[in-house]
Amino acid sequence: MQPNHGGNLRWAANIAGTSEANILDFSASINPLGTPDSAIAAIHSHLTSLKHYPDPEYIALRQALAEFHQISSGCILAGNGVSELLTWAGRDLGQFVATVLFTPAFSDYYRAFKTFGVEIEDYALGIDDDRELKFFLPELPKTGSRLQKGILINNPHNPTGYLFTRKALIPYLDEFGLVVIDEAFMDFLPLWQQQSLIDLVPKYSNLVILRSLTKFYGLPGLRLGYAIAHPDRVNQWQQWRDPWSVNSLAVAAGIAIVKDIEFQQKTWDWLSSARPQLWQGLNHLEGIYPIMGAANYLLVRTEASGAWLQQQLLQSDRILIRDCLSFTELGDHYIRVAVRLEAENNRLIKGLAKIMN
Amino acid sequence: MQPNHGGNLRWAANIAGTSEANILDFSASINPLGTPDSAIAAIHSHLTSLKHYPDPEYIALRQALAEFHQISSGCILAGNGVSELLTWAGRDLGQFVATVLFTPAFSDYYRAFKTFGVEIEDYALGIDDDRELKFFLPELPKTGSRLQKGILINNPHNPTGYLFTRKALIPYLDEFGLVVIDEAFMDFLPLWQQQSLIDLVPKYSNLVILRSLTKFYGLPGLRLGYAIAHPDRVNQWQQWRDPWSVNSLAVAAGIAIVKDIEFQQKTWDWLSSARPQLWQGLNHLEGIYPIMGAANYLLVRTEASGAWLQQQLLQSDRILIRDCLSFTELGDHYIRVAVRLEAENNRLIKGLAKIMN
Repeated sequence: MQPNHGGNLRWAANIAGTSEANILDFSASINPLGTPDSAIAAIHSHLTSLKHYPDPEYIALRQALAEFHQISSGCILAGNGVSELLTWAGRDLGQFVATVLFTPAFSDYYRAFKTFGVEIEDYALGIDDDRELKFFLPELPKTGSRLQKGILINNPHNPTGYLFTRKALIPYLDEFGLVVIDEAFMDFLPLWQQQSLIDLVPKYSNLVILRSLTKFYGLPGLRLGYAIAHPDRVNQWQQWRDPWSVNSLAVAAGIAIVKDIEFQQKTWDWLSSARPQLWQGLNHLEGIYPIMGAANYLLVRTEASGAWLQQQLLQSDRILIRDCLSFTELGDHYIRVAVRLEAENNRLIKGLAKIMN
Repeated sequence: MQPNHGGNLRWAANIAGTSEANILDFSASINPLGTPDSAIAAIHSHLTSLKHYPDPEYIALRQALAEFHQISSGCILAGNGVSELLTWAGRDLGQFVATVLFTPAFSDYYRAFKTFGVEIEDYALGIDDDRELKFFLPELPKTGSRLQKGILINNPHNPTGYLFTRKALIPYLDEFGLVVIDEAFMDFLPLWQQQSLIDLVPKYSNLVILRSLTKFYGLPGLRLGYAIAHPDRVNQWQQWRDPWSVNSLAVAAGIAIVKDIEFQQKTWDWLSSARPQLWQGLNHLEGIYPIMGAANYLLVRTEASGAWLQQQLLQSDRILIRDCLSFTELGDHYIRVAVRLEAENNRLIKGLAKIMN
């Protein structure tokens, strides 16, 4: 079965006729610097704590995150990855008459919406292909107050890499009954470029920010994310879900990594040069049109079929890219590739060049 | 805040004026033999896999569990602890007009029911206190078919330790639209005593069994459970929830521990002598009436207030027991204690003896 998400190495290894360890994975947008030593050390030193339940209030982890963001720990809800928190966002949005969504959109949003019968009102991101491919924010129809509606926005946006500005987002806070911003990839931007709305949580009780700790810190196997919202909403979500959704090793790692300033700086340094390098390499290829984005992945329009390119790269070079079939509005002439280390990016560029010639 | 669940060591350490490591925990019913070496070794050797997403189909883990139970892997859904699976049981039961529940019942059932607006029809377990305290199964009123209703049964039952026989349960399979059996503690019974309905899953598409791997194998901090049900229901639950709810270290540990026959035998050997030892020690005390149960914990009726006993034991001996306030039908004259190693059980017995004299 064609996977719906990136990072399905079992499936890829099968197609490539090799083991999972031999696959070079451009399909999941994970920091290629790997898991920081600070995380591994924290996990090691907490193996003996597995025989106890996690603290159901996750006080220590929430305090570490609160310090990291300079916000009250009562506003923080730790989760078993952003995906688990999307479930509860779905439960919350299901109480509104509809939820506005910009498309293409991450397939897991539809999953969470379907679970709770959320009515979707979708608007396609505009695409400008005059010279360089570029996405832009469509104007929502003027219908007066939308307080009976919710809105879910992914910033930076997956898969386009489009970055909504704070200025564009802030008006929604007065217009919509519930505003959920999935900032799962925001930490890849250096602080001065970030367009996070975290600082507005104390002012807007209808705002929820979702953040991931597993993409930037190379820990998708461990599962760790968090929501930032009004304490009443944090309590409500907490009462909906089970008491111990975050495992103790994720707690230990989370507390350690937010303090790992060296790893953070190394990641920003790597991305600031590796992303333009990958973009330029791809842009030189026939029939390949990379779109510059703000995150650690690039959406690429392709003359060839994306699914076919995926198959070819797997079989010839054991390289896994993301086709975009699960983003139905994009169709089969797009692929998404993670930005990786420069030597790895070169392998991808060469692999694509071979196929396109 | 008084915790709703056992195992809240942060809260207990605070009351006892010591660190969490100094608390002797009888409140969470976890195997006192600790985490098996096989689990720790598996976790160690999978730390490098944290940089990849888990396999969203969890094929390897499901195959290991399928072999363990001699059932098809398509019937197995791995979960982030039984608690996460209770969420989806709640979603499923919410589609029925009501759900029958025997009380007292685990407080997390009410949480999952509330999240999905499940209507509860509750029946108190009978209690016979003629000579020895004993619970029994109440007869459900004869109302003809209950196919519009669900039923959730905990077997062995928490907190009473009551073991429903297969013979008592099987008729429900033809009567109710959905039968969920939470067998989270069933693995503590030697195989010949178990009353599991797992073997009936292929025959009844309305049957769901929930199992835990964290109580028996000393891993509550890692989070791992699974549901066994008809493949259509497994797929349905999978579509409701997020794709990667089980972390990769739990997967690795799970595959290893179900094959750890030596640890399983050691646990059964320990419990077969430690439980009667604890029961007898408690039974000799004034005002303390332990109820023999099938699991690795004992419910105890107490002349003194349970919450007061909890406080006293924490302050005088750093021993944490479970008050039963969250089981509202029991009230404040019950406590629940885990069966631990014989020397630890003796510490509890002595601590209680001091207080009761």
